[in-house]
Amino acid sequence: MSHECSFLEDLSIDGAVSFGDTARANHATDWVTDVTETGVSPDAVVWPESTTDVSKILAAANERKIPVTPYAAGTSLEGNPVPVFGGVSMDMTKLNRIIEIRQNDLQIDVEPGVMGSAIDEAAAEYGLFFPPMPSSANISTIGGMIANDASGKKTVKYGEVADWVLELEVVLADGTVIETGSKAIKTSSGYNLKNLLIGSEGTLGVVTRASVKLEGIPEQIKGGRAVFPTMDDAAAAVFDTVRSGVDVAKIELIDPVAAKLANEYLDTGLPDQPMIFFEFHANHGIDDEIEFFRSILESHNVHTFEIATDERMEQLWRARDDLAFAAEQYDPKLSPRHPGDVTVPISRYPDIIRYAKSLAAEHDLLLPCFGHAGDGNLHYLALVDPTNEEMIKTAEEVYGSIVERALEYGGTATGEHGIGMGKRRFLEAEHGPAGVEMMRRIKTAFDPNGILNPGKIFPESDRTSNGARPETSG
Amino acid sequence: MSHECSFLEDLSIDGAVSFGDTARANHATDWVTDVTETGVSPDAVVWPESTTDVSKILAAANERKIPVTPYAAGTSLEGNPVPVFGGVSMDMTKLNRIIEIRQNDLQIDVEPGVMGSAIDEAAAEYGLFFPPMPSSANISTIGGMIANDASGKKTVKYGEVADWVLELEVVLADGTVIETGSKAIKTSSGYNLKNLLIGSEGTLGVVTRASVKLEGIPEQIKGGRAVFPTMDDAAAAVFDTVRSGVDVAKIELIDPVAAKLANEYLDTGLPDQPMIFFEFHANHGIDDEIEFFRSILESHNVHTFEIATDERMEQLWRARDDLAFAAEQYDPKLSPRHPGDVTVPISRYPDIIRYAKSLAAEHDLLLPCFGHAGDGNLHYLALVDPTNEEMIKTAEEVYGSIVERALEYGGTATGEHGIGMGKRRFLEAEHGPAGVEMMRRIKTAFDPNGILNPGKIFPESDRTSNGARPETSG
Repeated sequence: MSHECSFLEDLSIDGAVSFGDTARANHATDWVTDVTETGVSPDAVVWPESTTDVSKILAAANERKIPVTPYAAGTSLEGNPVPVFGGVSMDMTKLNRIIEIRQNDLQIDVEPGVMGSAIDEAAAEYGLFFPPMPSSANISTIGGMIANDASGKKTVKYGEVADWVLELEVVLADGTVIETGSKAIKTSSGYNLKNLLIGSEGTLGVVTRASVKLEGIPEQIKGGRAVFPTMDDAAAAVFDTVRSGVDVAKIELIDPVAAKLANEYLDTGLPDQPMIFFEFHANHGIDDEIEFFRSILESHNVHTFEIATDERMEQLWRARDDLAFAAEQYDPKLSPRHPGDVTVPISRYPDIIRYAKSLAAEHDLLLPCFGHAGDGNLHYLALVDPTNEEMIKTAEEVYGSIVERALEYGGTATGEHGIGMGKRRFLEAEHGPAGVEMMRRIKTAFDPNGILNPGKIFPESDRTSNGARPETSG
Repeated sequence: MSHECSFLEDLSIDGAVSFGDTARANHATDWVTDVTETGVSPDAVVWPESTTDVSKILAAANERKIPVTPYAAGTSLEGNPVPVFGGVSMDMTKLNRIIEIRQNDLQIDVEPGVMGSAIDEAAAEYGLFFPPMPSSANISTIGGMIANDASGKKTVKYGEVADWVLELEVVLADGTVIETGSKAIKTSSGYNLKNLLIGSEGTLGVVTRASVKLEGIPEQIKGGRAVFPTMDDAAAAVFDTVRSGVDVAKIELIDPVAAKLANEYLDTGLPDQPMIFFEFHANHGIDDEIEFFRSILESHNVHTFEIATDERMEQLWRARDDLAFAAEQYDPKLSPRHPGDVTVPISRYPDIIRYAKSLAAEHDLLLPCFGHAGDGNLHYLALVDPTNEEMIKTAEEVYGSIVERALEYGGTATGEHGIGMGKRRFLEAEHGPAGVEMMRRIKTAFDPNGILNPGKIFPESDRTSNGARPETSG
């Protein structure tokens, strides 16, 4: 099929093009998508090196109605950058310059291929940091974070990525370049295209530059760990903490199964009990705030409450951040299914955990639960025997039942990973047919030929907007 | 023309309809729009009492291609709810129920006609408040705040209205009802229709219910005032405060002209000097944070720094909040032009103030400057003799020059008042022709007949989307 994409060679762009099997295979998957399941790979891979490159590629592909799927670190969890209809995989990782730090405005301008950790490193030189950074900072790009409206451990205090993006340069499907947002920290000017593009998973346009806000690193940072006799106690403690307005900067739940995985992987020595890892940020008064927090936890039967040293805390966060790796390594006979990412109003957090645990028990599944508890965000993944079809089917059913329950609670199918391929079947349940129809119209307004990352977000049955490969004319 | 709107009488809605001159005149203006300038009033006014009413009205108007302009408290500053092409003024103030407070989730569900102050009163019973509340809380509705993506004095710490709206029920132009957003505090599910609708000034849909987040009232609140020898010092102090990461909850600038207006209006006894009013919120450590702040101000020649009693602070905030009234009352021979609302990156805040002041001096204009300094948001208004056409022309030119300068600084034409009619001429300069074209396509996708609040946001020359009255067929 590569002849269809041969136009890439005639574009006189600065970036490289490959039709090779290795490059194509490398761009056929994300973190969890099994290429043997999708059976597709892109026809070509291109690495643009400038906005002009991106514009030329999109204009030419749009003319020929050839799909273009932006790709960066490939650490998505819902198949978001998998080019299910072939065409061009546009790898954004050569657009990886930190353009400017404006320390006086607490702002940084970056290209989409910059790694999260590179932003925090550059910012740290000025005493600044990027607050909504996801746990995957070391392995994911700012472009990917914007495409999925990612969030992270500090979201409970600071908000999600969308809250920190001020201005975007975006190339539209036909190659037109727009700038949206403002370098002012608030604006009421015109329609909010910026927030529409954030989280649109590369289906409406391709970000080529982002101006994001930074924040001063707080003068005081203290973290620690609290251990509870039961998950009910731990979940209720989180709920009560949020409800009481404790100014916590991170509050993560780790269940005993997740603790076991972490111990196997990193020798962390975590107890076999439900835990909260937490962190506080303040310029002043941090100890009083932590005491306030401790008093709330004590009313929920906390039996160990400890403030950790910096070294120990780093180890604990590492254990938390590496849970995905830990799940992969735990048992050679078991393979993790793609992690759930439901988010519910905080009052239902204890309920959704109880429900997940009851399903795991009922079906005898190893189902570690963890996540950004203060946001009401629950991650869960079943460890299954990949040769056991019955077990896989059960795991998928459990996965779906938890999503459906989250929607019943007024929550969302995805707090931070996006819809991608994996959650398309829940879109209409969450937004209603009329809501999905308005999304479809927006898709058509931005991308009339349906070339941008087709086969994502919209229901699988959708044949009108981007559920099918567009007919090619080139 | 009322025959054209006679369909309203046949809709069997619960709400009232009026074709009377008084009702029509009352819905022809906002806070600053002079009806003698626009020369228009709606052909009919309708007061829907339910989502079903709104749906019926819009469906019928859409079929007949009759303009419908949502109206609430009428306190807009850019002509946003003025029905410039006649048709129906849809007054949302009967949809004024507080539906539910979910104190455990820190959420409240309200109808759009609920006054800002009513939300804070209801929330206060549970120890909660609505952080982004604008200064106009007593005279404006939550629906209007959402339509303009309003913000307020506490935005410097807590963000704007959009950051606090979780879920919206919206009636689209054809009467379809959608729900967008989630009661979870974060979501990455599908396109962000919610934030697209927020700030769209009733041109894409009509909000009939909003779920918004609340926050616990902090345990410690302290405010005060700082006086500076020059505006340069005061503006630089604000800049340095924000840059240093001081956790300030309000930081407002008042120039000597604004102080004079306030003194005349409320007998506030403010000195004839540049001032900052400020407030801090914390559960713990507030005094240390205020000391940190004071040290920064001292490096900018502050000569009076005082923490105020609650009573005095209330008086000071009242003086700030009532500046619009004060400007109207100051001199019977002078009339305020509509206030500017530019917002710039904080490092340019001293520059934009210097520029505004230099223009005022050059043209001998009384031009009070004030605003949400910590956001880089500057309000200014010229007091002019309404019989002096030359003076009005000069004031308009000064108004425009300041907007243009703000855009040069990477800022925005409007931080919180919206585009309405008054700022249409700056839209393309701010967003570029391609950005405006995408807004136009969204408008067409949502409102193909252009019935929703036509004549707003888009450039005056715009004849394709909503710059002109749609042709009527009914």
